[in-house]
Amino acid sequence: MLALRVEKDGVAVREVDTPNLPDEALVRVLVSGICNTDLEIARGYAGFTGTIGHEFVGVVAQSQDRSLIGTRVVGEINAGCGKCEWCNAGDSRHCAERTVLGIVGRDGAHAEYLQLPLQNLLMVPERIPDEHAVFIEPLAAACAIRERVDFSGETRTAVIGDGKLGLLCAQAIALTGAPLLLIGKHEEKLRIAARLGIETSTVADAEKRGRDFDVVVEASGAASGFTLARKLLRPRGTLVLKSTFHGNSEIDAAQIVVDELSIVGSRCGRFAPAIDLLKKGAIELDSLISEEYPLSEGAFALQRASQKGILKVLLRP
Amino acid sequence: MLALRVEKDGVAVREVDTPNLPDEALVRVLVSGICNTDLEIARGYAGFTGTIGHEFVGVVAQSQDRSLIGTRVVGEINAGCGKCEWCNAGDSRHCAERTVLGIVGRDGAHAEYLQLPLQNLLMVPERIPDEHAVFIEPLAAACAIRERVDFSGETRTAVIGDGKLGLLCAQAIALTGAPLLLIGKHEEKLRIAARLGIETSTVADAEKRGRDFDVVVEASGAASGFTLARKLLRPRGTLVLKSTFHGNSEIDAAQIVVDELSIVGSRCGRFAPAIDLLKKGAIELDSLISEEYPLSEGAFALQRASQKGILKVLLRP
Repeated sequence: MLALRVEKDGVAVREVDTPNLPDEALVRVLVSGICNTDLEIARGYAGFTGTIGHEFVGVVAQSQDRSLIGTRVVGEINAGCGKCEWCNAGDSRHCAERTVLGIVGRDGAHAEYLQLPLQNLLMVPERIPDEHAVFIEPLAAACAIRERVDFSGETRTAVIGDGKLGLLCAQAIALTGAPLLLIGKHEEKLRIAARLGIETSTVADAEKRGRDFDVVVEASGAASGFTLARKLLRPRGTLVLKSTFHGNSEIDAAQIVVDELSIVGSRCGRFAPAIDLLKKGAIELDSLISEEYPLSEGAFALQRASQKGILKVLLRP
Repeated sequence: MLALRVEKDGVAVREVDTPNLPDEALVRVLVSGICNTDLEIARGYAGFTGTIGHEFVGVVAQSQDRSLIGTRVVGEINAGCGKCEWCNAGDSRHCAERTVLGIVGRDGAHAEYLQLPLQNLLMVPERIPDEHAVFIEPLAAACAIRERVDFSGETRTAVIGDGKLGLLCAQAIALTGAPLLLIGKHEEKLRIAARLGIETSTVADAEKRGRDFDVVVEASGAASGFTLARKLLRPRGTLVLKSTFHGNSEIDAAQIVVDELSIVGSRCGRFAPAIDLLKKGAIELDSLISEEYPLSEGAFALQRASQKGILKVLLRP
């Protein structure tokens, strides 16, 4: 089968064996989505080699539970040991022995087929088209902020970053009723949010507001976003780190103490709440899709996804 | 009057005018305590010039409310504008216009007299001797961790740092019933905690425990404590920053995201809970007092307080 591989000698679509672990389900990929994490892995930041990609919708091709064959599914990307405290609590996201689809120790979704444990798979309701279902993973990550912070109608919130992650985070948080400002650098991306009724601001204008926010979500992945976040937070405010930065970031620890800030990391989310939101049509996704390529052009698609102004790029095997 | 001053040309005890703002209380200092923050200000880190010191017990010498004259008091160190959102909520600790005794825009406590607004003063119960009352400010700061983190009998907690702040934090947290480990580098200081029934560990032994802790309190003020804290925290654990570091600290933001850590800054505390604990005799303080000097020897006392192995140094005008 074809797969988009990161190897020591570069990034390319290659012919590899179809996965065949008998105790996991084999999923035929219908559509996969390129995430910024894929770009970082392709740049060699995460030390991963293999098939990249972790956003997908597919159809079960083989499974020990034969009733699942033919079912359209998405899959939670962390596969745990099944034995530790975390796995026993039904949450493998922090299992120390976990593999992560296309990120840690497990081939990923930019391929004709992938494998995941049966318990990772969730059926996709019929009314959600493939091109939306492929957003369930990043939308779940956006909704995961709501696992870590309580939002109310009085939680003055800013999201920094008008990329695909920022636009999903803004939509997920707007549904909580929190007064929300999306801050970005790209007029055309901010307009997508504005059309959805979300207040938007350029970085320069946001800086003029001062320390007005209870919660700031850093979803730009840039160190400058981190600095801006701390300029906007009121004392005892909460900074949610949603993007993975690479390497160490300079952080003014004295400001955290003096202003008694909280900094909260947020990573993967449960899929069920995201599926529920898509079923209700509560999230606008069409305007987030920039381009689509056949899997065979995966390496070019990765390049496109890294260009300024491009939002989600989809691959179709 | 005499006062221990940090000036551009150095640190020395000098003769200065007695403070005389008519709308604040004048307090005659009985005993003041040297805090690590004093040492940092003396090194020029905070940009403050004036009389340093913010831990004290004294007697009201002048006051618009004449019934207070002669009362033995301690004083909360943040004096707010009286008009902002924070001050209106009765908490000037985060007022943007605040002055802070001996730290920001207000002469401090290593002096014969100091001034504070009347509402900052709290009467000291008779059973608390001066040498204990002078610990109310740092004990309040230790107790303030309990404003920011919920401790239960199942919250596996480590305190890093066996200095005077760490020993107070450990005692304040131990009272919550949380299983607690105090980690330090100084055998004789760890023994103080051990005598109080607190489990202790060297840094090397603590590192062997792995990521076993729900909450880690960094009270060492050293960048190495920050690194150790993150080695000990379980995924989704909470790191409380209790010490002010100076300058920026390197922080691995990716680990905060991947492990979904929370980092929580904690600064000044309310005095009432600390007074209550001292009244009950719940905190051991005598073993934390290393030396005492007359105020006139304040500059030498500061030097002593910065020596290895020294805990609290007291000054008496």
